[in-house]
Amino acid sequence: MTQPLQLPPPGMRRVAVLGAGSWGTTFAKVLADGGSSVALWARRPELAREIRESRRNSDYLPGINLPRGIVASPRLEEVMFGAEQVYLSVPSQTLRENLRAVRELIPDGAIVVSLMKGLEMQTRHRMSEVILQELGGDPDRIAVVSGPNLALEIAKEQPTAAVVASRSLETAEEIARAATNPYFRSFVNTDVTGTEFGGVLKNLIAVAIGIVDGVGYGENTKASIITRGLVEMTDFAVAHGALPETMTGLAGLGDLIATCESPLSRNNTAGRLLGQGYAFREVIQQMNQTAEGLSSVAPVLELAEARGIGMPIVSQVAQVLAGTLNPRDIAPHLTTDDTPQGE
Amino acid sequence: MTQPLQLPPPGMRRVAVLGAGSWGTTFAKVLADGGSSVALWARRPELAREIRESRRNSDYLPGINLPRGIVASPRLEEVMFGAEQVYLSVPSQTLRENLRAVRELIPDGAIVVSLMKGLEMQTRHRMSEVILQELGGDPDRIAVVSGPNLALEIAKEQPTAAVVASRSLETAEEIARAATNPYFRSFVNTDVTGTEFGGVLKNLIAVAIGIVDGVGYGENTKASIITRGLVEMTDFAVAHGALPETMTGLAGLGDLIATCESPLSRNNTAGRLLGQGYAFREVIQQMNQTAEGLSSVAPVLELAEARGIGMPIVSQVAQVLAGTLNPRDIAPHLTTDDTPQGE
Repeated sequence: MTQPLQLPPPGMRRVAVLGAGSWGTTFAKVLADGGSSVALWARRPELAREIRESRRNSDYLPGINLPRGIVASPRLEEVMFGAEQVYLSVPSQTLRENLRAVRELIPDGAIVVSLMKGLEMQTRHRMSEVILQELGGDPDRIAVVSGPNLALEIAKEQPTAAVVASRSLETAEEIARAATNPYFRSFVNTDVTGTEFGGVLKNLIAVAIGIVDGVGYGENTKASIITRGLVEMTDFAVAHGALPETMTGLAGLGDLIATCESPLSRNNTAGRLLGQGYAFREVIQQMNQTAEGLSSVAPVLELAEARGIGMPIVSQVAQVLAGTLNPRDIAPHLTTDDTPQGE
Repeated sequence: MTQPLQLPPPGMRRVAVLGAGSWGTTFAKVLADGGSSVALWARRPELAREIRESRRNSDYLPGINLPRGIVASPRLEEVMFGAEQVYLSVPSQTLRENLRAVRELIPDGAIVVSLMKGLEMQTRHRMSEVILQELGGDPDRIAVVSGPNLALEIAKEQPTAAVVASRSLETAEEIARAATNPYFRSFVNTDVTGTEFGGVLKNLIAVAIGIVDGVGYGENTKASIITRGLVEMTDFAVAHGALPETMTGLAGLGDLIATCESPLSRNNTAGRLLGQGYAFREVIQQMNQTAEGLSSVAPVLELAEARGIGMPIVSQVAQVLAGTLNPRDIAPHLTTDDTPQGE
């Protein structure tokens, strides 16, 4: 039996987080530790109960105690009631259907915030674009959060910085205030496109890093690929309207480095298996879940081609996935290009 | 007894490398594997003999077989004879005296190339500046090499890229041709200042990374420090005449990442010991040698202050070295700044 949610004390910011995976739950903790009253939506009733009763999400955040400021429920109407800010952390391919289910429940004037990093495969749209299409309303009331944000490290309260982007600086600042606490600091910008593309594109470079890692190459090779990968990411994002400084900031370079250096990253792991000689299909089987980077390769290359942008690293990842390039041969290609002049 | 050096076959490029430490010896191998005939100067006769007779430099490059294209000698006049290119890889604080010893032996018109990353402490000059001061002559015949270049990985022939910079593009290209082989690729630019400062400044950020590593923080924190460290490096270098794109390239960001991620880096190790609570003086004792990054902190901060450049990360490393900041407190400071607006 679901207990009714308690109302927060007067004056306390009331927010909703949809999605109780590792990132949604961690962000709920960030917000609660920043002084908000957080209602967390877990699709599965037993997970909502575990969070509510034992203050744990043991599947996704083993060993982490959740703060008192979080209440959890599987019922959207309870979670959404009175929310001034609605944070979305559902699988990116399910965002559209989730928005349709929740649309009528979002309080008027609430800011809607994407915590997700991905593209909708069928439409190639960014998460904020899907939100605007499904909810309509004022694009200035939409924000996105990104940055070098490995969930488990934040859940352990390790010092971390993030970026909140919105077309409206005021909206971004409102979210940044909510998403700031002693171990988590949010910076703001108005480059939604760059901030979102950073989170998508870094996964592709992380696959490349995983591949050379799997082959057995070291830090020189990886540093070269990250450096030249950032150039590809920047060319792509800027052609889509992003600012170059977003790509050299926390949502671009910062997230890229954290993802490439984390042995826990699914994209990194997928690449490592490919580098060790497993075929694409075997990697998918072995990982028992998909890695965002693998499924983004084709749509990103299509978008790049449509604008005439060269992405040699991503192209070669695609060739490894297709089985037409030996992983051993990827690193020498990636650290060179066809023009000996200049970097 | 020293054997006379053999002359290379006609048409083969003849080059000299001064300094048979791990980097000098590795670069001699890179050049030899690129088709040059390399004469390597080792200060100690027994090291020259080991390289000549067993094709090994077991102290500095354990397990690496050196190619036949390298001859070694402790006699400068033998090594310099007929060299078209002279590569310098001696400790940066000894460069000036080494140049005075070798000055008269450098063949007319030879290109002089710095492989070193450091500042002369007393004068705060870059290596290419010391070379020009001591040798005089045409600044267009001076070049520097930098990049994400951990010596042992290159000696193992892992795919690596580097940057050759010279005021003269033609000079840079001549060196890049010599320093290219199947596992090593050289790019060129004309930004000597930026290329050299990249190699100096990255050591300071690597100390900061070591500190937070020693404290026990993870990839989010490190990625934030690398990202914001690059901003500090760029501000500093650009104020001294460097181009921003050099700092986001292999000699800036690339070298920074490789150094920060290498557990073998002395700067990283020094930082880690500081982060674990050892005092500066204990770190120096324990490491039995100095780390370039530690001795560069004071001169870099002086240069920064003289131009009004803020370097919060480097300043806080200085405070940890001085014992006035607890290493535990460095990460939260480093991932934040005083202005909540913008990144």
